[in-house]
Amino acid sequence: MKPSIPKGTRDFSPAEVAKRQYIIQKIKTNFEKFGFQPIETPSFENSETLMGKYGEEGDRLIFKILNSGEYLEKFNDFLLKIVEESLFYHKESIVHFNNLNVEDGIKLVEDDIVKFTSDFQKIINIKNLNYFEDEKISINLIEDLYNLLIDFIHNPENGLGKDRFILMDELHLKDVSLKIFASFYLKLKSKYLASYISEKALRYDLTVPFARYVVQHQNEIEFPFKRYQIQPVWRADRPQKGRFREFFQCDADVVGSTSLWQEVELVQLYDSVFTDLGLNKVTIKINNRKILSGIAEVIGASDKLIDFTVALDKLDKIGEDGVKKEMIEKGISETAIEKVQPLFHFTGSIAEKIEKLATLLSSSVDGMKGVEELQFICDNVSSLGLSSSILDLDVTLARGLNYYTGAIFEVAPPATVSMGSIGGGGRYDDLTGIFGLKNMSGVGISFGLDRIYLVIEELNLFPETVTSTSKAIFLNFGNEETKYAMKAISNLRKSGLKVELYPDNVKIGKQFQYADKRGIPFAVIVGDEEMKNDQFSLKNLASGEQQKVSFEELKELLA
Amino acid sequence: MKPSIPKGTRDFSPAEVAKRQYIIQKIKTNFEKFGFQPIETPSFENSETLMGKYGEEGDRLIFKILNSGEYLEKFNDFLLKIVEESLFYHKESIVHFNNLNVEDGIKLVEDDIVKFTSDFQKIINIKNLNYFEDEKISINLIEDLYNLLIDFIHNPENGLGKDRFILMDELHLKDVSLKIFASFYLKLKSKYLASYISEKALRYDLTVPFARYVVQHQNEIEFPFKRYQIQPVWRADRPQKGRFREFFQCDADVVGSTSLWQEVELVQLYDSVFTDLGLNKVTIKINNRKILSGIAEVIGASDKLIDFTVALDKLDKIGEDGVKKEMIEKGISETAIEKVQPLFHFTGSIAEKIEKLATLLSSSVDGMKGVEELQFICDNVSSLGLSSSILDLDVTLARGLNYYTGAIFEVAPPATVSMGSIGGGGRYDDLTGIFGLKNMSGVGISFGLDRIYLVIEELNLFPETVTSTSKAIFLNFGNEETKYAMKAISNLRKSGLKVELYPDNVKIGKQFQYADKRGIPFAVIVGDEEMKNDQFSLKNLASGEQQKVSFEELKELLA
Repeated sequence: MKPSIPKGTRDFSPAEVAKRQYIIQKIKTNFEKFGFQPIETPSFENSETLMGKYGEEGDRLIFKILNSGEYLEKFNDFLLKIVEESLFYHKESIVHFNNLNVEDGIKLVEDDIVKFTSDFQKIINIKNLNYFEDEKISINLIEDLYNLLIDFIHNPENGLGKDRFILMDELHLKDVSLKIFASFYLKLKSKYLASYISEKALRYDLTVPFARYVVQHQNEIEFPFKRYQIQPVWRADRPQKGRFREFFQCDADVVGSTSLWQEVELVQLYDSVFTDLGLNKVTIKINNRKILSGIAEVIGASDKLIDFTVALDKLDKIGEDGVKKEMIEKGISETAIEKVQPLFHFTGSIAEKIEKLATLLSSSVDGMKGVEELQFICDNVSSLGLSSSILDLDVTLARGLNYYTGAIFEVAPPATVSMGSIGGGGRYDDLTGIFGLKNMSGVGISFGLDRIYLVIEELNLFPETVTSTSKAIFLNFGNEETKYAMKAISNLRKSGLKVELYPDNVKIGKQFQYADKRGIPFAVIVGDEEMKNDQFSLKNLASGEQQKVSFEELKELLA
Repeated sequence: MKPSIPKGTRDFSPAEVAKRQYIIQKIKTNFEKFGFQPIETPSFENSETLMGKYGEEGDRLIFKILNSGEYLEKFNDFLLKIVEESLFYHKESIVHFNNLNVEDGIKLVEDDIVKFTSDFQKIINIKNLNYFEDEKISINLIEDLYNLLIDFIHNPENGLGKDRFILMDELHLKDVSLKIFASFYLKLKSKYLASYISEKALRYDLTVPFARYVVQHQNEIEFPFKRYQIQPVWRADRPQKGRFREFFQCDADVVGSTSLWQEVELVQLYDSVFTDLGLNKVTIKINNRKILSGIAEVIGASDKLIDFTVALDKLDKIGEDGVKKEMIEKGISETAIEKVQPLFHFTGSIAEKIEKLATLLSSSVDGMKGVEELQFICDNVSSLGLSSSILDLDVTLARGLNYYTGAIFEVAPPATVSMGSIGGGGRYDDLTGIFGLKNMSGVGISFGLDRIYLVIEELNLFPETVTSTSKAIFLNFGNEETKYAMKAISNLRKSGLKVELYPDNVKIGKQFQYADKRGIPFAVIVGDEEMKNDQFSLKNLASGEQQKVSFEELKELLA
């Protein structure tokens, strides 16, 4: 049986690692040029650090790690307790049903359940079951149980059913009651179960660990703190093309300053990285949460904001009428649509767009603050200039609407490539509040490594020098020749050259074939004659050209 | 409440990341110079890939990942089944105990248990419990149950005890039987439990994933395959000083060739890395599994080999007599010790040591093969020369005895540092056999990043240039000044310089203080005068020296 790896994960071959490292190195170099400093955080965090930070869906997608050590024994104790307690209920239920009139059987109908649950309540009161009190759920207990029983008898699979009034002998009823109690008990316990067997979880993104880091190390950090972090994250998402369960994030964030110069620098940083990667004409889209709030204010419906931006985003595809139709279908009034009419002809230079927004949002304090911020950022970016990227103002950009409070960024690849965003970011006014450090504004951007890789591959922009393969291989003609070769190899390596020895003395054809398949450009041949003359035969494996050279010449030719 | 990270894990500050990256970069560069190519494997593997590969203790230390998605619901079904089945046993046990003579109570002693277990066997036979058959454990079932019951009644905590013959009423006995059955059932199930809730586990080392990679990708790989891998691994070890639950391994291995030239190159590789790191006079210890087999043969006790090497290793500390005393205590005969007498005076050059071994092991075929291998490796290393390291032959080196089959390596830090090994490795004749690809010899070495870090730190060998801090900070005197400054900043960054802007226009003292605490060497000041004259004031923050310079001069001074 061939071994495999978990779905959604990847092995990276030498060629792939070299290309990934090439991108990471460019990003890293630029992060540092822009004054960002690297930190690294552990792959797993305490569960409470991560849980509840990404919404309910996010919580579900966090990979949890089983407690190590004696967890299995502890866990068995826990199970044993469940078994014992379920049995206790079983015993009680037998007592209960023995007290019911069960001469020919019992009609288990809704009326009976009322009595049943009230009896159950008595049992609980008598027994004073403290774990229910502990968990502060005793008030809802009877109601929950009632619903559970009603559900149970209405499920045809259980062979009961309100309409059929099936008669059950006493034993059957006991079994049913047992099953109900056990299942009920487990339902109560299950929410505590996960935390019982797992207290650690794999990092879901780099932002929450960064916020945790800042709060934990606040006394060692000088603010504003510009940090970058390039590490893998893990998500239990359903794997699909281009979406993985393990992938790298490359984040740069500043925390502890509200200066808009940082937004200016982050746009420049995007431009600098993509220029260095040869990825020209990416579009850096910018928007501002306050612009979106202003629009919501103007259309008089903040709950319709997403519907509005999603529809507006389709302007190119379905035209003005199509967009308006969709907006009306979503419950946005015609009056509201009329008010934001300029957004349907939102073209021109950034300066012109900002002017349009200033008119449109003049009645909104928030909106006008957004206009002012955009103006500052765009003016300064424009006066400093971008090397190869295009800055664009996109009012439909609503990425991360829930947490961004100021600028919103997104980078689209060159228009010739059909691919989603290759980067994104924004400002959040309260980055570290979740961990108790208030009023720390943060702003940051992220690079999508996997997509950038695909874009560069598609545009054939990886330099040929991006490879981890050796420059030359010394063929193996036997131990004496190899001793001679190894001296040269050692010296070439000391000069920083990547060279290798074919380790085994096998047929020379096989060695050439190996060099060829590995994509090594040169082979070095050492035979009697070369040894006698203190020379090396250097063969260019692409052209087939071969020449005898001295060590110094060899070094020069391989450099 | 201050947030924290799981025990045994670490946050790395910018200074620490820079130093770690410095070491990793040196290792990486040398790996590539020696013809090794990088691969990367996923952080988690399928559990069956890892389990059973590191012994029982290793299995326990592997971090398991909870199945994602609906695992909790499935798990509840599983628990419910346990509850139901336990209850089934309960019912059976009641029947059983009702059939016993329990007039005044039962003496639960060993005689009774014989009957009890035999009755239980009957129940199992009658009920034909197929999950026991499925798990092929029914044969041992009765024996296990018997032992469990014996253990149970002998435990004073259960209020019973063989010597006390405590009488129990029927009900108490039922409870006891229930508890026994439930606990027994769980014991049976628990080994299946982990796989039920977890199918993935975090990488424990880089060797097993490498073997898996080679087998999985065997058709894409050219053999011999020289790969390196620098990635974190995770172990649920008890954390202690210098031992972490997440740490990096840096491995270079060759698979698919038995050539001893690789051992020669690996010694050179160690030398090259440690020389590059300025870590001179490390001792590269070498031994060979076959030498150890030879010694075992000569002392006539292969099971005493570890006791022998452990004792011999103490020669410096407790002297020849002490070592011999310990050996005799461990059951090694005086005759045996006499036979290996030369090992007690095992000094001199490597060549002399090899000669002594050749005499000592002349009767052992395996041993002489080891001598021959050592001779080849040491001769060639010696003729090629090492830059700064010391090669030593250490017959007490028994590292990884269970899997190494040829050379064994270990690197000790310079004698001035008190620290364990900073690297190790060896040859294993069948690296990929566990995954079904036979006859693939592998040889490799590993670098201990954390310990190397500590040694370099202790010896103060990190170059001052190892830092991620900016070279200069432009102070912020307001928007006009900043616009002027940002133009210079952009241009300096385009020349590859690390410079930053203080983002906020706050008191200048605070800005200087920030630069100082951050360890930034230069501050650049831009005021009215500088702007007027197209200049910059550059202040050396260590000396306090300040000068007015042009942009070109600035660029030169910061380069």
